[in-house]
Amino acid sequence: MKIPEKNNISLISDHLKPFIHRTPVMRSQQLNKLCVADLYFKCENFQKTGSFKIRGAMNAVMNLSEKEKANGVITHSSGNFAQALAYAAAKSGIKASIIMPENVIISKRDAVLGYGAEIIYSGTQPNDRESLCSEVQQKTGAYFVHPSNDINVINGHSSCAVELIEDSEKLDALFVPVGGGGLASGISIGFRHFSPETKIYGAEPANADDACRSLKAGKIIPSVNPDTIADGLKTSLGSNTFPLLKELLTEIITVTEEEIISAMKLIWERMKIIIEPSSAVSFAAYFKNKKNFSGANIGLILSGGNVDLLKLPF
Amino acid sequence: MKIPEKNNISLISDHLKPFIHRTPVMRSQQLNKLCVADLYFKCENFQKTGSFKIRGAMNAVMNLSEKEKANGVITHSSGNFAQALAYAAAKSGIKASIIMPENVIISKRDAVLGYGAEIIYSGTQPNDRESLCSEVQQKTGAYFVHPSNDINVINGHSSCAVELIEDSEKLDALFVPVGGGGLASGISIGFRHFSPETKIYGAEPANADDACRSLKAGKIIPSVNPDTIADGLKTSLGSNTFPLLKELLTEIITVTEEEIISAMKLIWERMKIIIEPSSAVSFAAYFKNKKNFSGANIGLILSGGNVDLLKLPF
Repeated sequence: MKIPEKNNISLISDHLKPFIHRTPVMRSQQLNKLCVADLYFKCENFQKTGSFKIRGAMNAVMNLSEKEKANGVITHSSGNFAQALAYAAAKSGIKASIIMPENVIISKRDAVLGYGAEIIYSGTQPNDRESLCSEVQQKTGAYFVHPSNDINVINGHSSCAVELIEDSEKLDALFVPVGGGGLASGISIGFRHFSPETKIYGAEPANADDACRSLKAGKIIPSVNPDTIADGLKTSLGSNTFPLLKELLTEIITVTEEEIISAMKLIWERMKIIIEPSSAVSFAAYFKNKKNFSGANIGLILSGGNVDLLKLPF
Repeated sequence: MKIPEKNNISLISDHLKPFIHRTPVMRSQQLNKLCVADLYFKCENFQKTGSFKIRGAMNAVMNLSEKEKANGVITHSSGNFAQALAYAAAKSGIKASIIMPENVIISKRDAVLGYGAEIIYSGTQPNDRESLCSEVQQKTGAYFVHPSNDINVINGHSSCAVELIEDSEKLDALFVPVGGGGLASGISIGFRHFSPETKIYGAEPANADDACRSLKAGKIIPSVNPDTIADGLKTSLGSNTFPLLKELLTEIITVTEEEIISAMKLIWERMKIIIEPSSAVSFAAYFKNKKNFSGANIGLILSGGNVDLLKLPF
């Protein structure tokens, strides 16, 4: 896909406003002191449905024609995008079908059902839900919204960058988690237009480092059954997100499971906010390299806060 | 003590501003829907040192004469007031000695040491630290600041009410946790002056219900070795807080340990913020009585966010 025009990104941000929270940009004097930098945390854990995903889901649903809306929307997701699309569909008065793994976290399942969406259960692997999704979609004619590679999903996420840029000092660097690359792509587009000097760093679990490997190899190399606590980052880059990130990212930094857990605990303890492991990946990537950014203004995307409190890693 | 003048409370709030955070008043559409009310959460978990206690500690230190400052300050505390007084003393360039139980949570101990205060360890019971504190105070001549019964501590806490009243719609009812009664007294004074129609409800663990029993009996009946997860609420009312609460509170509501844990989990899950069990007591007291407040504007004081992540109750 081509990078959309600046004006288009502004319009999308404006259109989304009534449907999403303008999440706060939090500061922490303690962490600033510890890191010798000025940190700006964009708190998408406080976003509607508990993650940034509503931005893209809402924009995708808003861009459907009446004809496309007729049979509802469908997607596959183990969690955050499921809730987001269910919510967006409910707000637009259309039907949503979500393919979820049979071992889905109960709170996520209940949230999706609470928004009135239909759940169809698949096996536990990403491939299982993708193939079942395709099967059901062909039967019902529902409009398929890909959780990360859909163009309107990507563009919707850019609203997160627009807000962060408006609500912080000029950022020298920005750290964003990379899974399927939808958030990182949207964020990078927003910064390209509204703060082009900011360097954008993707952050990825070493245990699901397909983006790092793909960008090095110059072609998409998907992760195979990745195992990481950052469960939102298991998916691999797609046909839109790969070229976008290739063009827009400064670098991808990978972090270990220990670094993720330790970063998550540090944010819980010092900032008193609940972030999910995927959110902690951006902070972990920055934190291990903080000496390279001494005195800088750093943006950090905390992508979501949906955790299972009964299964915490500490 | 007499209720201080309105003008005096305004001045205290103004003087404290440079030293404390103006904490956010958070909303939750999900919880509003669940409770059929408009909830305003005053988030003192985001306060400097992780709890409201800095308001009172800072005001107490600011009110000392040069002579009183000469030998530093001393207090006894198992946690939040210890950090607060250590911080306030550091900001004022005076010495602080804190009597803490030998089994203090390591993160709380480290925070006190980090602010440059001296720790003197006592036995694990409140009585142990009170008697040791008195002993040390007589030797050193340090100025003793009581964590909840000190007049300037109480008045400092009223700044929390002033902010909440300014930052929310007119509140029909306000719920505040009661331990030693310093916060509840300060909050009640603030509301008496700036929103006198708001009914103030104290919230107390049933396992540490000295305030409830004392107000019924018309005299102070301290708790004896209370056992509750809300460790900030184990202390009993004092000579200043008892008459203030007697005059200003509408009612005290007690909650079980299960109700506290369940309220804490609900706030963590829905609001994505970390509050300590003592904070959850105010929400638990409201939540069990929510039918009596249908459609009302409800203020809830979330008093702090200092928890030991390795010892969560769920």
